[in-house]
Amino acid sequence: MKFDKEYTLKEVASWIGGEPIGDLSIPARGINEIHVVEPGDITFVDHPKYYKKALNSAATTIIINKKLTPPEGKALIYHKDPFTAYNKIVKHFSNFSPSNDLISDSATIGEGTIIQPGTFIGENVKIGKNCIIHANATIYHDIIIGDNVIIHSGTVIGADAFYFQKRQDGYHKMISGGRVIIGDNVEIGANCTIDRGVSADTIIGDGTKLDNLIQIGHDTVIGKNCLFAAQVGVAGAVRIEDDVILWGQVGVQKDLTIGKGAVVLGQSGVGNDLEGGKTYFGSPAKEAREKMKELVYVTRIPEILEKMKEK
Amino acid sequence: MKFDKEYTLKEVASWIGGEPIGDLSIPARGINEIHVVEPGDITFVDHPKYYKKALNSAATTIIINKKLTPPEGKALIYHKDPFTAYNKIVKHFSNFSPSNDLISDSATIGEGTIIQPGTFIGENVKIGKNCIIHANATIYHDIIIGDNVIIHSGTVIGADAFYFQKRQDGYHKMISGGRVIIGDNVEIGANCTIDRGVSADTIIGDGTKLDNLIQIGHDTVIGKNCLFAAQVGVAGAVRIEDDVILWGQVGVQKDLTIGKGAVVLGQSGVGNDLEGGKTYFGSPAKEAREKMKELVYVTRIPEILEKMKEK
Amino acid sequence: MKFDKEYTLKEVASWIGGEPIGDLSIPARGINEIHVVEPGDITFVDHPKYYKKALNSAATTIIINKKLTPPEGKALIYHKDPFTAYNKIVKHFSNFSPSNDLISDSATIGEGTIIQPGTFIGENVKIGKNCIIHANATIYHDIIIGDNVIIHSGTVIGADAFYFQKRQDGYHKMISGGRVIIGDNVEIGANCTIDRGVSADTIIGDGTKLDNLIQIGHDTVIGKNCLFAAQVGVAGAVRIEDDVILWGQVGVQKDLTIGKGAVVLGQSGVGNDLEGGKTYFGSPAKEAREKMKELVYVTRIPEILEKMKEK
Repeated sequence: MKFDKEYTLKEVASWIGGEPIGDLSIPARGINEIHVVEPGDITFVDHPKYYKKALNSAATTIIINKKLTPPEGKALIYHKDPFTAYNKIVKHFSNFSPSNDLISDSATIGEGTIIQPGTFIGENVKIGKNCIIHANATIYHDIIIGDNVIIHSGTVIGADAFYFQKRQDGYHKMISGGRVIIGDNVEIGANCTIDRGVSADTIIGDGTKLDNLIQIGHDTVIGKNCLFAAQVGVAGAVRIEDDVILWGQVGVQKDLTIGKGAVVLGQSGVGNDLEGGKTYFGSPAKEAREKMKELVYVTRIPEILEKMKEK
Repeated sequence: MKFDKEYTLKEVASWIGGEPIGDLSIPARGINEIHVVEPGDITFVDHPKYYKKALNSAATTIIINKKLTPPEGKALIYHKDPFTAYNKIVKHFSNFSPSNDLISDSATIGEGTIIQPGTFIGENVKIGKNCIIHANATIYHDIIIGDNVIIHSGTVIGADAFYFQKRQDGYHKMISGGRVIIGDNVEIGANCTIDRGVSADTIIGDGTKLDNLIQIGHDTVIGKNCLFAAQVGVAGAVRIEDDVILWGQVGVQKDLTIGKGAVVLGQSGVGNDLEGGKTYFGSPAKEAREKMKELVYVTRIPEILEKMKEK
Repeated sequence: MKFDKEYTLKEVASWIGGEPIGDLSIPARGINEIHVVEPGDITFVDHPKYYKKALNSAATTIIINKKLTPPEGKALIYHKDPFTAYNKIVKHFSNFSPSNDLISDSATIGEGTIIQPGTFIGENVKIGKNCIIHANATIYHDIIIGDNVIIHSGTVIGADAFYFQKRQDGYHKMISGGRVIIGDNVEIGANCTIDRGVSADTIIGDGTKLDNLIQIGHDTVIGKNCLFAAQVGVAGAVRIEDDVILWGQVGVQKDLTIGKGAVVLGQSGVGNDLEGGKTYFGSPAKEAREKMKELVYVTRIPEILEKMKEK
């Protein structure tokens, strides 16, 4: 996530009760996990195994549980629990707050947009023009929705990422600091769940259409004019390019890429990157033609067993 | 969908700005897609490949993008974009309208029926006697629900069909003009989604019981006394006869028929018509006995490979 | 379910219009299905095939459709429809009642707990300290939630069990008399459904984290620090021990046990008890290593067929 403005190392360290190491005026412009950091970002590391990776990453400020000399042009913040410190900074910038109103005062809603009864719209939500948000939908805080978007009833946009760190006393939650951004002309069916990003944004491209009961995980980026049938589940940090079709009940594992124009047949399970322009089937998914052949081969095993008996 | 009364060719043409060709007094009693039209219906065709099919269909009025001579007893409406014209007519008859109330004034609710808080009930909904609609359910406009029906929380009845036409500038939505009709003694679990028909009705027969998180697609017709376990997904235009049991997470593709008394085991994927009275398993689903044998055969491949090595 | 206090055979018989057989002062402290009864419980039996099992069970009072001599220390209640009589007793103790308020007066909500708008909280619900219940969630009556619990929007806790008895005139519903009990530090994602127990309780252990669109069936007991990814479906009466991980879209059949620390990979279907500490895959699920081998074996069938042709 990017901050609203630039802060100094000194300010950031004071929020988390950490000890700044290095130039106190070094700027912080955002915070991110180690694998997605950019210059200006804060990140954290709490295991010696990853110290080197963190120090060599693009991050400008590293929250760390050991006192080291910062690399050239970078700063450290010493903290005995960097994970908790990271969460504290993300929380500092979150617009979530207890609400008494179904529609927050800080939400902006475009001309011609219809909000049906029972729908909740959180702090700092921006909805474009000529949208319909049907009854009993839920839009958490910090969500951006384009023009001509239809969202059906019961759909939940912006719930927290399912993202936990296992520690000795159980799972600790990584606070979700990202948003959900929905393009123009998107339609989302009933009872879907589109989680917010942990540190970046979950994005649904222009013209994409989702059926009912679909799960889209945190930080996942979906291209334009995709079509997902009912009960599809896409995990976190997946990249789905334009014009992809996922048929009903398809599951997609995290951190994958599905190429432009790929078609995945119903109930398939995607466990690897898929090249665009092809059709896939099976769990795990393969090219459909190949998988269909395998299904026929299996039916020939009795014949094989019979022939072997003869010999 | 059927209209509230009979209209003339002249009236219909004027709604869509089309040019009537034929007897201006020819009556229009409804509108439907080409594969389900009946005499008196309007339909549309926009591709020369389907002109003949449309002109020879049971439809009385055809919206078409070419000026032709209408067949005996039929009329045409010339329009350069028949798809958009069709949508305009469906919209003309839809009771959807922006609402400020959770329960619409035009809804009728039978004696002894309990509506729990937070539930939305749209225009022109009819609910029978002695039903319970639990909290935070959503019943869109134009839905008919029988007697002694239980609908659990979060369930959404009557969201739009997932039905799009691919055009050069992306997917265009077919407006849903159908309803949902739910019989007597039906129970529908929590967070289910039952879509309305595109041009006909989605129907759930008397005594059928649905568990939670189930998807039923547009125009699908389900018989009496069926039992569907959680997370079942049924696509659009499926016909499921009486006494069918679908176990958890079963998926059913569109335009199929499942015969009376069929049982489909958990996680199966139904891709073809299934004969009644039998048990099925697998994705794609086969007779369970056959599929179970295949699963055993696969485990014998190492033995086959071993024997072949010996020779 | 356990009663609020002890009742006599005479009182119980009067509620259901049954004929008590035996000592009228015999105490009733609860009611349960035959496979889970304890001393003091009422149970029912309506088929001669199960008479012996019911009479020899731990139950103290048996509702039965034949006049027999009760075993030593036990009582019978003769009723021509024991199933309906059983339902009547469960209903007698249920706190469900029509409500006009989103938050029931009889609910108790701990210090620091945030209830967001649109959420329904039924009769006799107890929520601990420092919880967040997000907008448009639904908590039915008689639910117990611990401290530091997060429940996301659209989630439904305590809908009825999917539990029916087939009778000549269709499916008859077993009234759900159990509760849902959620431990401390649990997080439940958006649009999940956690059904109440039929006669016992559905339980989610401390520290367990559920992603979105997850189904948990009636009377299922889940241990501590489990992790279930999106769209997992667990049927009724399942026992899942501590530290179990179920990846996305896994399905678990009823009446099973999954041992401590087991990991089940995405889209697997669990149809048998699983030993703890191992990783499983497939539908039906096997040890993952074994299943992965089978997937490779299948690809070698063409080679086998080729070789056999040569001979």
